[in-house]
Amino acid sequence: MNPVNVGLLGLGTVGGGTFNVLNRNADEITRRAGRGIRISHAAARDFDPARLPGIDAISVSDDAFAIIEEPDVDIIVELIGGYEPARELVLRAIANGKHVVTANKALIAKHGNEIFAAAQARGVMVAFEAAVAGGICIINGTGNFILTEMRDKGRDFADVLAEAQALGYAEVDPTFDIEGIDAAHKLTILASIAFGIPLQFDKVYTEGISNITREDVEYAEEFGYRIKHLGYTRRSASGIEMRVHPTLIPERRLIANVDGVMNAVLVQADAVGPTLYYGAGAGSEPTASAVVADIIDVARTLTADPGNRVPHLAFQPDSISDIPILTMADVETAYYLRMQVTDKPGVMADIARILGDGGISIEAIVQKEPAEGAEFATIIMLCHKVQEGSMNQAIAQIEALDFIPGKVTRIRMETLKAD
Amino acid sequence: MNPVNVGLLGLGTVGGGTFNVLNRNADEITRRAGRGIRISHAAARDFDPARLPGIDAISVSDDAFAIIEEPDVDIIVELIGGYEPARELVLRAIANGKHVVTANKALIAKHGNEIFAAAQARGVMVAFEAAVAGGICIINGTGNFILTEMRDKGRDFADVLAEAQALGYAEVDPTFDIEGIDAAHKLTILASIAFGIPLQFDKVYTEGISNITREDVEYAEEFGYRIKHLGYTRRSASGIEMRVHPTLIPERRLIANVDGVMNAVLVQADAVGPTLYYGAGAGSEPTASAVVADIIDVARTLTADPGNRVPHLAFQPDSISDIPILTMADVETAYYLRMQVTDKPGVMADIARILGDGGISIEAIVQKEPAEGAEFATIIMLCHKVQEGSMNQAIAQIEALDFIPGKVTRIRMETLKAD
Repeated sequence: MNPVNVGLLGLGTVGGGTFNVLNRNADEITRRAGRGIRISHAAARDFDPARLPGIDAISVSDDAFAIIEEPDVDIIVELIGGYEPARELVLRAIANGKHVVTANKALIAKHGNEIFAAAQARGVMVAFEAAVAGGICIINGTGNFILTEMRDKGRDFADVLAEAQALGYAEVDPTFDIEGIDAAHKLTILASIAFGIPLQFDKVYTEGISNITREDVEYAEEFGYRIKHLGYTRRSASGIEMRVHPTLIPERRLIANVDGVMNAVLVQADAVGPTLYYGAGAGSEPTASAVVADIIDVARTLTADPGNRVPHLAFQPDSISDIPILTMADVETAYYLRMQVTDKPGVMADIARILGDGGISIEAIVQKEPAEGAEFATIIMLCHKVQEGSMNQAIAQIEALDFIPGKVTRIRMETLKAD
Repeated sequence: MNPVNVGLLGLGTVGGGTFNVLNRNADEITRRAGRGIRISHAAARDFDPARLPGIDAISVSDDAFAIIEEPDVDIIVELIGGYEPARELVLRAIANGKHVVTANKALIAKHGNEIFAAAQARGVMVAFEAAVAGGICIINGTGNFILTEMRDKGRDFADVLAEAQALGYAEVDPTFDIEGIDAAHKLTILASIAFGIPLQFDKVYTEGISNITREDVEYAEEFGYRIKHLGYTRRSASGIEMRVHPTLIPERRLIANVDGVMNAVLVQADAVGPTLYYGAGAGSEPTASAVVADIIDVARTLTADPGNRVPHLAFQPDSISDIPILTMADVETAYYLRMQVTDKPGVMADIARILGDGGISIEAIVQKEPAEGAEFATIIMLCHKVQEGSMNQAIAQIEALDFIPGKVTRIRMETLKAD
């Protein structure tokens, strides 16, 4: 199919951004839309070519009214703003049979009724709002309920789980929920939609929350973190990560404040930055609501040509690509470690040496003295980002030390800041 | 057009919910989809008719495989769950040329590739996720930045505004932002999409944040509230509210934790309950991202029949209804009041009597003694929900008292809980 030609009115803040986002993601957009989209014409009184790489390849005029008369232009993108001449430009573009996209909320709020009536009569589209995609993390509702109760009320895992089962939040066999299988299903689907990859549920790493203790929740809090049962997928130069596990998140992040059985999805995307979507993750009517909305969408496009529908995974089927999925050994994260130690001199030095030799740097370290009558002290530490393979080696060496009586508890940490 | 016939597989938690949500909102759905949608067949081994009013009007079988052979059924809704027989039912429905809707994330995560390939080959849709609509509030990004700074750093309004202008968050003429005009534009559009009403920007009540003092921010905090510059629209039996003003919100609400220049939209909907959408509200690339997504959507459906596209305001044009917009005098909210008083006996009693006579009940009241050398004490009170007309009368009477030297500061409060 021929590419779609876009006439861009305005090359200011948003117009320039639109030009750059379209150019930078041209291949990705073709994979989703099923055809190329190119800016063939632009209108601007004044603009800075240095901010717009590739602008010299297209025709830039200072006359917006000339562009809406161009027969080759399929879509007019109005980014001039304000009421006039935006209104007149949009109405004339519609009269010329062109589809219109605008970011001008003032124009739509004030003149939308007139504009939509004209578009309806002429059979063209006017689009003025939209969604996003990118790098994603999701919260597991059942795990979140348990961890929230452990934090708010200082309760133990087994105790809260029993209540969650009684309340119907967790199944009688709670494996699906607390081992993160349900979150892994959702993550599989979101990763495919975000990155245009096949569904690969069996490649998601999943780890449950049953080893998280009340003490871990409290220590995390002391360091300014909350523990959430998080699904995480990210695309990097070497491949795609897909993993579900308990995760420390800084308490100032909005997603760290999603409590109880509520679900949330945090998307980190190229142009829009972070966005968050929050709502009930289960239950009869919330799920039914999504089902009904899907039925409405299907009913709307029942007689449409299949090529006009949004593809199943948001990418055209022949554009799904097989980007490698990283194993956990290759994934890089920060870590929270907790271990019991015999309380004697030199302990901290030995642990620090093992971490240092493994290229692991320590962000914070706290030693809690043995409780009255107890034999062991507790060390809690936060470590900076490192490959999990290196961390696993270091932990094996630490566990082999003779003053370490048990296992090292290891919880991954994510800052969830834009990289 | 004939109604679309839906075959529902499963009448359990989600299946029953889908049946009830579709029935309860039948008229509203026809307004949006452009044609009726009815459940013509259902399959269930076991169900409780008392939970499903209207179920006796349709054919319920215990054989799901029989329903996917019904020639009249256009859409199969698979709500049985699990991998099998869900997979086989869905594949056979597709082979029969039926569109499929499912809430089964496990099925899609594990067998989605196979199912989508079959649907693609047969030219039918498979839908498995969706969005919502309902009662909405939005946060004004610039106002939010100013109020966040006032709270975090104890700064004054004018001081923070000057910085916001220097940073480019607020325009040199900041009226649009701080008076809430920008939020009112967005609210106008969201209200039309939510309720199927014409765009009526001139009927939005707008009030800015320039009268909010550092003290109001602190007192709100003492009571467990945050002040946000909120746009609010709600449909009640008597009409629709559309208003933008500073608002006290309980600090435990997720939207109370949206800080800085970020925007958020909170939607309170019939079936799904509360959902929240969060992201950057302005800036070059975030806005460009929405523009580009719209261009992609338009490009996708360029050759589609106009009747197959989502209508401009999500409702079919001939289904837009002219529901009355309430004036502020008719709106009911709770209130925060702050006033200076001459510090003498009987003051509190006179104020309480005026409020009581107006049918206004007091939730909390605090008197702050005059600062060293100052003449007046400060009274802060929280009042329960009342019609704004009654509150205005009471405030006029309080301001007429001779021991009240100035104006009463009045800030509206919303609990943002489901009613």
